[in-house]
Amino acid sequence: MSEDKLRVVAVGVEAFDQALRDTDTPFVRLDWKPPAAGDTDLVGALFNIDTACVDENGLSLVDKANKEVFDRILRGQPTLRRILPAHRCIEGMTRNTILHSGPPIKWEDMCGPMRGAFLGAIRYEGLAETDEEAAEMMSAGKIAYGPNHARSAIGPMTGMISYSMPVFVVENETFGNKAYCTINEGIGKVMRFGANGPEVIERLRWLEKSLAPALDEAVQAMGGVNLKNIIAQSLAMGDEMHQRNVAASLNFYKAVAGPLHDALRKREDGTRAAAFIASGNEQFFLNLAMASAKSILDPCRDVPYSTVITAMSRNGVNFGINVSGLGQRWFEAPCLKPEALYFPGFSEKDANPDMGDSAIVECIGIGGFAMGSAPAVVRFVGAGGLADAQRYTNSMGEITIGRNPALAMPNMDFAGVPTGIDIRKVVATGVLPVINTGVAHKEPGIGQVGAGIVNPPMAIMEEAVRAFARKYAGQCRGNI
Amino acid sequence: MSEDKLRVVAVGVEAFDQALRDTDTPFVRLDWKPPAAGDTDLVGALFNIDTACVDENGLSLVDKANKEVFDRILRGQPTLRRILPAHRCIEGMTRNTILHSGPPIKWEDMCGPMRGAFLGAIRYEGLAETDEEAAEMMSAGKIAYGPNHARSAIGPMTGMISYSMPVFVVENETFGNKAYCTINEGIGKVMRFGANGPEVIERLRWLEKSLAPALDEAVQAMGGVNLKNIIAQSLAMGDEMHQRNVAASLNFYKAVAGPLHDALRKREDGTRAAAFIASGNEQFFLNLAMASAKSILDPCRDVPYSTVITAMSRNGVNFGINVSGLGQRWFEAPCLKPEALYFPGFSEKDANPDMGDSAIVECIGIGGFAMGSAPAVVRFVGAGGLADAQRYTNSMGEITIGRNPALAMPNMDFAGVPTGIDIRKVVATGVLPVINTGVAHKEPGIGQVGAGIVNPPMAIMEEAVRAFARKYAGQCRGNI
Repeated sequence: MSEDKLRVVAVGVEAFDQALRDTDTPFVRLDWKPPAAGDTDLVGALFNIDTACVDENGLSLVDKANKEVFDRILRGQPTLRRILPAHRCIEGMTRNTILHSGPPIKWEDMCGPMRGAFLGAIRYEGLAETDEEAAEMMSAGKIAYGPNHARSAIGPMTGMISYSMPVFVVENETFGNKAYCTINEGIGKVMRFGANGPEVIERLRWLEKSLAPALDEAVQAMGGVNLKNIIAQSLAMGDEMHQRNVAASLNFYKAVAGPLHDALRKREDGTRAAAFIASGNEQFFLNLAMASAKSILDPCRDVPYSTVITAMSRNGVNFGINVSGLGQRWFEAPCLKPEALYFPGFSEKDANPDMGDSAIVECIGIGGFAMGSAPAVVRFVGAGGLADAQRYTNSMGEITIGRNPALAMPNMDFAGVPTGIDIRKVVATGVLPVINTGVAHKEPGIGQVGAGIVNPPMAIMEEAVRAFARKYAGQCRGNI
Repeated sequence: MSEDKLRVVAVGVEAFDQALRDTDTPFVRLDWKPPAAGDTDLVGALFNIDTACVDENGLSLVDKANKEVFDRILRGQPTLRRILPAHRCIEGMTRNTILHSGPPIKWEDMCGPMRGAFLGAIRYEGLAETDEEAAEMMSAGKIAYGPNHARSAIGPMTGMISYSMPVFVVENETFGNKAYCTINEGIGKVMRFGANGPEVIERLRWLEKSLAPALDEAVQAMGGVNLKNIIAQSLAMGDEMHQRNVAASLNFYKAVAGPLHDALRKREDGTRAAAFIASGNEQFFLNLAMASAKSILDPCRDVPYSTVITAMSRNGVNFGINVSGLGQRWFEAPCLKPEALYFPGFSEKDANPDMGDSAIVECIGIGGFAMGSAPAVVRFVGAGGLADAQRYTNSMGEITIGRNPALAMPNMDFAGVPTGIDIRKVVATGVLPVINTGVAHKEPGIGQVGAGIVNPPMAIMEEAVRAFARKYAGQCRGNI
């Protein structure tokens, strides 16, 4: 090749490429974007965080804090201890308390499925006979409601937890804290998707009266069930533990099979319970994965200088995140609609915006972050083929603190899942966390209509970075 | 680059490479081997098969026959129908009949673990009190023994099937034939690995008296269990169904959970049975996968002109294959020792050569052929990393008729498993079938000592090609 020809490395604005092509100038395009999409205010905030948050040796206090949080995530040891009625374990649950998913929201602002779930939960608790009565109680302020996250609890989709509902009690053995989540009801017409008909209420009562006491007996007989092992085993079996829990549900059944059989054989409806866990509900483990993640992340809250996300959660209207160094504050913006595949007879126009506390699993590196380990889920959520799945997982490596070697992905040559979302990296790279999610119908009473992929709105990441800079890096440059 | 320099493409003998390197001559080495490793006799046999076995239009009768066999494999629908004592379903089982794995072999020629298993099986049937008595019966010709394969049966490792042992009855719904296999005993000290102590005999009796009748009741209540679905689901969950049946065993449990619970709750030891299948034996499904493969392949036998392998099997001394167009004839040569990882305390010097009927699963494209779908097994059998696993699977594509779309591997972008081993392709490419296998201790009474990878000896492939050429292509060139 002659040496006198112009050779170009092109970065940034792509409009120049055509000019190079027109003049036959060879060029290489670098896949580079200016940090924070060229927003100088945000660049200033990121710069200030980097330069101001340092110790006497010039080492980053943020990196140090994030390393601490990352270590706490890796050290987490979620163990299922009991299955108990919510009022026996969750603080402050009165007969008329109902907890919901996502950041706080008022009754009048709630989306359709969330309203449907509230009305069903009120009837399930025997506080009202009809939806009309129940709605009146909500309007009249007779129900004390608030987010699960404020009570160490967590719930998928609408996330309902009421007084009598049985919840898994998951203890993080390393730190001694507990997290709570209801029992997964199955798919289709279920309360978490806003359905509230008689079969929904009947199933909830059966879970309360039959399955929960038997499972509690089995778990007590075993002295607890190590959930981290099940998560690790199931990653090797094609689950990402958000939209696919086929292996994890079976691995959980496997762990309790003997004692559960003992507990169930005395019961008239024992076979229904055995079949419900082993055969009837491929998402059974989702709620256990969520409680595991919540129990792992609660001890990661309130670490000064940490930019790691401790919760991502949606109430069907707003998407909210918490950031370790910024305490319990919710950074919120309207939820996006998932890019989804819809069940027959439904389409995007039926879809409610993104909802549920379940995105907690992505915060520990599973769910959408581990899609490369779960090629079968990629088609279920409409995300393409195996290469796409592995691209998703690899790109999550760009916005996280590190890899969790205890949660290895054999499909990706045993790489650990990308763990600990750093808001600095999200804003600097423009790569948003990817969440695998179910999609609820926007009207109350209907249920699930599809499954897909969704992101948090970038605005809340940017808002959190600005707030972080204000709190930790003093006055920031620019108009923030 | 100047145009006057010598440039070389090197194929064949590698000794010339150094000369090229010494003279700084740039060269590209092609990874090419002459077909049949340069053996002109074999090349002649392959050539004769290709040229002589054609119809009036010059189309290959072999390709046509192999396509027919391939279609039969794809159309196979293995369904578990019953669990019955061997004498109630396998033809000609008398009280003193014992079937074994592999091609036929005489008592005096058997390896240690096979002898240990025979002695245990004789005691289990109450035909003798001690190993000495049992050995005397064998020497005196008082036990009628022969290979499983001759009775539509199949067994892992030593492959023992005796009069009272319960067997799975698997029907190929498409063709109506049935195949039989014992219930997997678990791992470690078990009869299939040649162990025969009191705990081995006790477990076999318990399988016969308790687990088998209850499981039979459940399966009958269900009207049968579709095993092909379970194999397909489990491929998506990291199993290759030879050395890894973690998901398949759970998926089987899942399929029968409700009816099995009903059948077991009436029994004193029901919990032991529930736990044995769901928790106690991660290889439980192996025997069902084997019976499935046997039921699929038996209708593929005796198709004139077909060069597809209908069985690969080992008796611990010799490795034998059957070829469709060559009927029931065994092509045999001494077994190789597996390349294995050994359990703590054991090493290669403890290993018995390759053994068992289990390589039937590779004949339908699972086991070693599907390793690319089961990255976790690759480490268990000591075969390297994910890339190696996928290389194994891809190389099996070179020696098979086609891909089975019903057995898709999500980890390999949903490619079907490579199916239908063609002895022509094996000999022409030099690529041997790869088998994932357990390794038995060479002495009787000890059991499993490791797991690894093994090939059939090339000699039997070559012998089969020569025999095929003699039968179908008339006189072959060369000294054969």
